[in-house]
Amino acid sequence: VLSLCCLVFRSLVIISTLDGRIAALDPENSGRKQWDLDVGSGSLVSSSLSKPEVFGNKMIIPSLDGDLFQWDRDRESMEAVPFTVESLLESSYKFGEDVVLVGGKSLTTYGLSSYSGKVRYICSAMGCRRWDDDETEQEETLLLHRTQKTVRAVGPRSGNEKWNFSVGHFELRYVPDIETRAGYIESNFKSNMNKEETKIISDVDEQEAMMKDTVIKVSVADWKVMAFNRRGGHLEWEYQFCTPIASAWLVKDGKVIPISLFDDTSYTANNEVLEDEEDLVEAARGATESSVYLGMYRGQLYLQSSVRISEKFPTN
Amino acid sequence: VLSLCCLVFRSLVIISTLDGRIAALDPENSGRKQWDLDVGSGSLVSSSLSKPEVFGNKMIIPSLDGDLFQWDRDRESMEAVPFTVESLLESSYKFGEDVVLVGGKSLTTYGLSSYSGKVRYICSAMGCRRWDDDETEQEETLLLHRTQKTVRAVGPRSGNEKWNFSVGHFELRYVPDIETRAGYIESNFKSNMNKEETKIISDVDEQEAMMKDTVIKVSVADWKVMAFNRRGGHLEWEYQFCTPIASAWLVKDGKVIPISLFDDTSYTANNEVLEDEEDLVEAARGATESSVYLGMYRGQLYLQSSVRISEKFPTN
Ligand SMILES: [W+6]
Ligand SMILES: [W+6]
Repeated sequence: VLSLCCLVFRSLVIISTLDGRIAALDPENSGRKQWDLDVGSGSLVSSSLSKPEVFGNKMIIPSLDGDLFQWDRDRESMEAVPFTVESLLESSYKFGEDVVLVGGKSLTTYGLSSYSGKVRYICSAMGCRRWDDDETEQEETLLLHRTQKTVRAVGPRSGNEKWNFSVGHFELRYVPDIETRAGYIESNFKSNMNKEETKIISDVDEQEAMMKDTVIKVSVADWKVMAFNRRGGHLEWEYQFCTPIASAWLVKDGKVIPISLFDDTSYTANNEVLEDEEDLVEAARGATESSVYLGMYRGQLYLQSSVRISEKFPTN
Repeated sequence: VLSLCCLVFRSLVIISTLDGRIAALDPENSGRKQWDLDVGSGSLVSSSLSKPEVFGNKMIIPSLDGDLFQWDRDRESMEAVPFTVESLLESSYKFGEDVVLVGGKSLTTYGLSSYSGKVRYICSAMGCRRWDDDETEQEETLLLHRTQKTVRAVGPRSGNEKWNFSVGHFELRYVPDIETRAGYIESNFKSNMNKEETKIISDVDEQEAMMKDTVIKVSVADWKVMAFNRRGGHLEWEYQFCTPIASAWLVKDGKVIPISLFDDTSYTANNEVLEDEEDLVEAARGATESSVYLGMYRGQLYLQSSVRISEKFPTN
């Protein structure tokens, strides 16, 4: 079994759901769940800001990245509030006498064995806790980085809480096993900073999340992962989650490929030629509107924007 | 006693020392210590980065604000490292395969009774803890905001720590008692954002930390607070600390006035006319050099820069 895992690296589809859990599906085995992770770190988003009681007819809706939006229910308008969770923390004293802001931003890393999903260590600002496991020592390491941002508003004299909210998200990184890097020279930071082996978003940015025969896609509205056949375009398998999906990745061949959350069309080539200026504008508008998703989880409204943030300018 | 405290607001000199403690001195009573606070939140700065064993002849020296500087002992040069504690946390994956960065930034508020120094509440990202005390309910509230930024570097596969450091600082805010604001209309956030009653750095930015007769100054090199007579310029009192001083404030008349850490000259008017261009350059150079202080605390080197960060442009 062990030798199987290291000789033939299996692919994995890793899903982060809004309840704070992580699931790993086997794309070469009909999307069967390989393992599940719940480190008890809580939901990705929670707040008291969306309750009408807090701010009347204005509701503050957080995005999973920590941006804030104000929905004015009377005017039916959604506006950007130019505060993020982080800038709120830096501006505590500017809020006047009635409010004191406390909170923080934390970055915690969970080191897992990729095949079995067992936790090897959890490291945070407080320190590290480690678990040894001879069985899993040979497996490659999957790193889940959780960023959580929290703000609480309290009364200055009493310390009574007025409102709070907390948003977080996971990022994934793959670390190959030492033996598969035989002959690899331990490089120093200088070249490390420019190395791309284990980057999360990189050259593969333009790749679709593709297996040999299938393309993996996520429907954020339906909370499910789907695999489409590349040639026929038909659905090969799908996996239904019971909570909204926050992020998704495909790990294969030592690379981590983000799976777009906003492209749930089946895999068909698009040959449509947009002749008209009007058609052009309409198509662009369609694309714009579907790049933001507003969902609700446990009574909490939240926003997600297009996951595939391109880091590169296209070329001529 | 109680009525005395509320009728005649006493001034206080608040000192934050590098061991994480806060002291309150009575400037109208020869600088006698009125109270002391140690919430067990640890030193303001601690790290493993300055030990030669970590990086050879390059030592990483943090400033109390979270900036990082690299001292190359061979070349005798001090350079800015364009990473701050916060940017390190955002760039975790860029450090290559050998290092995973974890950590966080936290903002915690301690609500104290100004006269007695008793803790009324401690609020942080985790929540609030409150202590009721009828005796102190009438006192004005002093708010100490502690910001702490921590980074740990660990090995990706093992979770073994490679290095760490943590820097923090306090900020002070004064909240007047409700009764002294009789007739004051509870304003909403709109006007609060622009209100100046309880600002930390404000109009008073140009004020010297002055009492009726004395001027309060801090000698960061000698770890002491001094009060000079305004007319004669002689020393009225001084208070010697056993640990370096990080920040200092004078609270009087409901205002918080930061005390510069870099102006330990006695109080004398400077009538020197700088005629020569050369004199001008030399004087400016002297001022530049004394605006940064490098100290050591428990074997840990750290930097402090000029506390009086002016937020305003001078006027014509
Ligand atoms: W209150
Ligand atoms: W290692």
